[in-house]
Amino acid sequence: MTALAPHPDRLFPIEPIERDLARRLHASVAQAPIYSPHGHIDAAMLADDAPFPDPAALLITPDHYVLRMLHAVGVPLDELGVARAGATARPSGRSIWRRLCEHWDDFLGTPVRYWFETELNEVFGLTEQPSAANADELYDQLAETLARDEFRPRALIERFRIAVLATTDDPADDLAAHHALRDDPTFGASVIPTFRADRYMHPDEPAWGGKLDQLSARSGIDCSTYRGLLDALRSRRQAFIAAGGTATDNGVLDAGSEPLDASDAERLHREALLGPLTAAEATAYRRNMLYQLAAMSSEDGLVMQLHPGVIRNHHRPTFDAYGPDTGHDLPDVGSFTRPLTPILRDFGTNPTFRLVLFTVDETTFSREIAPLAGFYPSVYAGAPWWFLDTPAAILRYRQAVTDSAGFTKTSGFIDDTRAFCSIPARHDMSRRVDAAYLSSLVATHQLSEEDAFTIAQRLVSDIPRATFRLP
Amino acid sequence: MTALAPHPDRLFPIEPIERDLARRLHASVAQAPIYSPHGHIDAAMLADDAPFPDPAALLITPDHYVLRMLHAVGVPLDELGVARAGATARPSGRSIWRRLCEHWDDFLGTPVRYWFETELNEVFGLTEQPSAANADELYDQLAETLARDEFRPRALIERFRIAVLATTDDPADDLAAHHALRDDPTFGASVIPTFRADRYMHPDEPAWGGKLDQLSARSGIDCSTYRGLLDALRSRRQAFIAAGGTATDNGVLDAGSEPLDASDAERLHREALLGPLTAAEATAYRRNMLYQLAAMSSEDGLVMQLHPGVIRNHHRPTFDAYGPDTGHDLPDVGSFTRPLTPILRDFGTNPTFRLVLFTVDETTFSREIAPLAGFYPSVYAGAPWWFLDTPAAILRYRQAVTDSAGFTKTSGFIDDTRAFCSIPARHDMSRRVDAAYLSSLVATHQLSEEDAFTIAQRLVSDIPRATFRLP
Amino acid sequence: MTALAPHPDRLFPIEPIERDLARRLHASVAQAPIYSPHGHIDAAMLADDAPFPDPAALLITPDHYVLRMLHAVGVPLDELGVARAGATARPSGRSIWRRLCEHWDDFLGTPVRYWFETELNEVFGLTEQPSAANADELYDQLAETLARDEFRPRALIERFRIAVLATTDDPADDLAAHHALRDDPTFGASVIPTFRADRYMHPDEPAWGGKLDQLSARSGIDCSTYRGLLDALRSRRQAFIAAGGTATDNGVLDAGSEPLDASDAERLHREALLGPLTAAEATAYRRNMLYQLAAMSSEDGLVMQLHPGVIRNHHRPTFDAYGPDTGHDLPDVGSFTRPLTPILRDFGTNPTFRLVLFTVDETTFSREIAPLAGFYPSVYAGAPWWFLDTPAAILRYRQAVTDSAGFTKTSGFIDDTRAFCSIPARHDMSRRVDAAYLSSLVATHQLSEEDAFTIAQRLVSDIPRATFRLP
Repeated sequence: MTALAPHPDRLFPIEPIERDLARRLHASVAQAPIYSPHGHIDAAMLADDAPFPDPAALLITPDHYVLRMLHAVGVPLDELGVARAGATARPSGRSIWRRLCEHWDDFLGTPVRYWFETELNEVFGLTEQPSAANADELYDQLAETLARDEFRPRALIERFRIAVLATTDDPADDLAAHHALRDDPTFGASVIPTFRADRYMHPDEPAWGGKLDQLSARSGIDCSTYRGLLDALRSRRQAFIAAGGTATDNGVLDAGSEPLDASDAERLHREALLGPLTAAEATAYRRNMLYQLAAMSSEDGLVMQLHPGVIRNHHRPTFDAYGPDTGHDLPDVGSFTRPLTPILRDFGTNPTFRLVLFTVDETTFSREIAPLAGFYPSVYAGAPWWFLDTPAAILRYRQAVTDSAGFTKTSGFIDDTRAFCSIPARHDMSRRVDAAYLSSLVATHQLSEEDAFTIAQRLVSDIPRATFRLP
Repeated sequence: MTALAPHPDRLFPIEPIERDLARRLHASVAQAPIYSPHGHIDAAMLADDAPFPDPAALLITPDHYVLRMLHAVGVPLDELGVARAGATARPSGRSIWRRLCEHWDDFLGTPVRYWFETELNEVFGLTEQPSAANADELYDQLAETLARDEFRPRALIERFRIAVLATTDDPADDLAAHHALRDDPTFGASVIPTFRADRYMHPDEPAWGGKLDQLSARSGIDCSTYRGLLDALRSRRQAFIAAGGTATDNGVLDAGSEPLDASDAERLHREALLGPLTAAEATAYRRNMLYQLAAMSSEDGLVMQLHPGVIRNHHRPTFDAYGPDTGHDLPDVGSFTRPLTPILRDFGTNPTFRLVLFTVDETTFSREIAPLAGFYPSVYAGAPWWFLDTPAAILRYRQAVTDSAGFTKTSGFIDDTRAFCSIPARHDMSRRVDAAYLSSLVATHQLSEEDAFTIAQRLVSDIPRATFRLP
Repeated sequence: MTALAPHPDRLFPIEPIERDLARRLHASVAQAPIYSPHGHIDAAMLADDAPFPDPAALLITPDHYVLRMLHAVGVPLDELGVARAGATARPSGRSIWRRLCEHWDDFLGTPVRYWFETELNEVFGLTEQPSAANADELYDQLAETLARDEFRPRALIERFRIAVLATTDDPADDLAAHHALRDDPTFGASVIPTFRADRYMHPDEPAWGGKLDQLSARSGIDCSTYRGLLDALRSRRQAFIAAGGTATDNGVLDAGSEPLDASDAERLHREALLGPLTAAEATAYRRNMLYQLAAMSSEDGLVMQLHPGVIRNHHRPTFDAYGPDTGHDLPDVGSFTRPLTPILRDFGTNPTFRLVLFTVDETTFSREIAPLAGFYPSVYAGAPWWFLDTPAAILRYRQAVTDSAGFTKTSGFIDDTRAFCSIPARHDMSRRVDAAYLSSLVATHQLSEEDAFTIAQRLVSDIPRATFRLP
């Protein structure tokens, strides 16, 4: 047996004086409440507060970070509980967990192992590293733990000190869970919706027409015209605002934002309802819609988050068999400065407008995102995302963006996770890396110790709250 | 009050033995004369030697590094003294200075703060960090200082130990200030012009025709033909050489350099005088002109500097209201190896030809610039520029280019600044980072201590002098 | 005289505790056998076991790493022994060696100097740094050494502890040298061929038709049809497998892999035999061939290595005068995720298929290669290559790929060299950098010391053996 005991000094710099300062900086924010302005937790999970299912269904099957790495070392997705189209049998949670344990050492050096170690130890109390030998024993221990009342979602959100949790929601969502949580005087955290209109931007997707129907039904506004769709979206944004929402999100293939004439947009909308658009038309429709969403943000003040540059479902056979979010979304070459020209030309200096830019191509940090955030008052440099949400990449982010954007024009950490129980580990990781970075600036006399403590505090509180206009 | 006291060990490595060596390496070059082979100081300022105007007009309004960051945190350009088209009132220097002081902490961790701290303390003797509370007091102190004789330009250039200062000048410039300085036996520094023909390369710019007229007048050669333009440029290059010039500069959108047949170039020139070219024609005209300028350099030996890849005036409304150089020029994706093929094919191994490549896209350092400098005898890897002219990015530059280009094929530091009083702080920053880098190579036994001292010395003297063929 | 004495702690981290661990990690693998799964040593050199020619012909003339840097500082290729077309005289080995010694300090800080120092000291026993002053003396010492029996190729391969050495071979090669070595009971190392079919992929190259004839003759299969060519390649792959081969290699301009219909491919093949294809047709032919080679690998299990993204022979006049491999191949912008879609769609999860991706554009490490290796079981992140095969870049590679690919999905080091005597120095360099990286993970508590030792061992043994299916 090998001990599972995350070191209190993990991720801190090595030189003793620098480490000591990092330790103190981290300690000053380690217990601060968590603001989580972007993620994928289901509000209904918190509203229902049902016990979590088995450990594998909580920790492995829904987490594409874990899936992709196990798949990469040869474990078929079936064996991880991902349902193959038409499949009837699902492996037991115990056998899924065994696969993870057998491949535990393939995760060495990766952030997935890092998060798991912290989470398994600090949340679930495990004290042994998983292995093929102890897999069953650990599984039993986890299953027993999850059955306890203090491991239900609401007890955990309190234990995790989560002050604000933003979910991601479709405009047609009724937000019932958000309202239920808001109206519950026994529930302390703010769980707020994020308006994600992606599925209305892609008339080339089979689901598009059905989504329009749903939105028409929810909003009471006929979406069979483009103007109707825009009105319905505006109306639902107000509903999101009423439910506490402060932001929108867009996951688009690229940041193109060229507006169309109203009549051209109307025509494309009409044609798309009748039959397939060409690829160029679908792209024009999407880019215009991104522009229109920016226009809406510049009116209603919902903070616009942009997550472009991911090639979805790269391996078609896996998509056909298992569906989306199964580990083969991959980074594309990123681009912001040119494609965002129309949005920034028209709204970039509007004080109501705010745009937070995220990337999976780290070359854009120093070349595009930080310079944009370093001129446009509306633009903020979003925290490292997805493939870059790691100790090493977060440090590179700070080194790349601080020159042009300082700290004030960065977004603060976002966890962007479906893995509820990893939230504290992820925020703590970010706080440790920021402490390490600040301490390196102090040790090289680029920052005073006093200023470092102030910034450490701002990064976990004022900065995310201001950036995302959080309660 | 917080002390403004730049630490003598700033930017040095943290480990004690490594730091000690960096300290000694820096000390060995800290007092060395400054060679500034590329910048934007006005020679007339030195020729006239008038006292500087108020502190804001010296330190803030003309410096787009400062403007962009203050703008990014919400300060309108009007409030920083940038004249809006049609505006009559200009804020007082004092109120501009207050804006900077109020936002002083938004600069934490940025090179702008770093330079300001060194400059305000070491040049102007301030000992308190600016803040909203002491803004007026510091303003008075600065204004009083600037009124003293020892703060006139000529006194400062001597105090700064600037041996050579290259300015940037239009081919139609009469270079009177350069001649006056050269003929003045009481003036010690070499102030030399740099031939920047950008405005003759863009027939799509409204000013182009007028520039041709100016150049015709100055050179006595009719520029209404393309051949005449080339002859006039050649003639003015000789005038620049006579005034001590050793280099040219080009700030172009891209490094494309495809030559045209003489008859095609002549035709485009003629058509451009009659009316607008198409975008493709204007691009072809520009790229051919870049090639022709390289051909001239391969004949007269003026060192060709190339600064491509900046998208100028990204925010059109700001440009319309305030004009260029107001903080919204932004980096483009960089490219050198393919677009420079024609120039390098024809002049790349010509001993007279020399080409110094600069970039704002740091991915090109290890992928393009260093490999080009690592084969072509004519090519030198230019120092980090503009957005990359920072402690962190300079270190990344050394780490990225040394493998393929060593030290010999790098350019030495250039300050590229309009901010005269920041020149010593910028060169000192570069010397510190180089000391840190060299000391890390020694500490990891990749370089001997003796060689490190030799290189440190070469980097501030032999290397820039040889690269730019300086006096 | 300056001592040539590579420090035992070179490339290790600076902080004492971290350095001590790196030292121990390195010591644990320093004597481990060398697996060299990709390189350019000639098997006939080992089969013949003739003494090496003069020092310059061994160390300088054939090594384009050395050529390019000496050329960059002004030494014409003629003076380095590279034969100019039509030239009759070749400079003496002694005069070539002098050029290197005169420019020895231009290599300071570069990996070429690093390798040379280790090789000259540890292989050849030199104890003085080369210089213009001692050039002749060192030359004599080297020449005398090379004449000794223990410096013949076979003695050296044993001394270097090379267990497996993969060469790079044309499909039409008879592999006689490989067979001779395999059949020789006195020869211990495995020298195995690598199937490199590049010259059959480019119908636009003048040599293409002649290559088809050679392949027809060698395979006994008529290559005048496309189907015949594929059959001949399949047949030769079996011959390579019979000779111990485990892998193929492709050095292509880009990773495009779009398959053609059999009839279209056949038509292009036929047309190419009759006259030149258009550039688009030649590209389509090449990309389809890459796809077909992947299909073959997915059947016969030869590991597919892909080395795309090098612009060959950038300086046309040098190519015309001196031919290829003379130092002016240059990195292109890299791309994998999109161009490899067809291959990965059809073979990416096939357990027989394996694809090792190499790049000279390091932006692709974190953006493309590691994410691909982090999902596809077939894909491995190849070690840094060519311009990136340096201490600094290898460390950046680990920092960039470990997040998504861990260690298991990396290839292990490849030396890719023509410089036989530099093989131990190159592998040792890699082991040192990996020790430094692992020790930094331990020092920041991201990895246990025990795991670090296990990984260090795996990186030099299990990982390359498994990746390349080595004996």
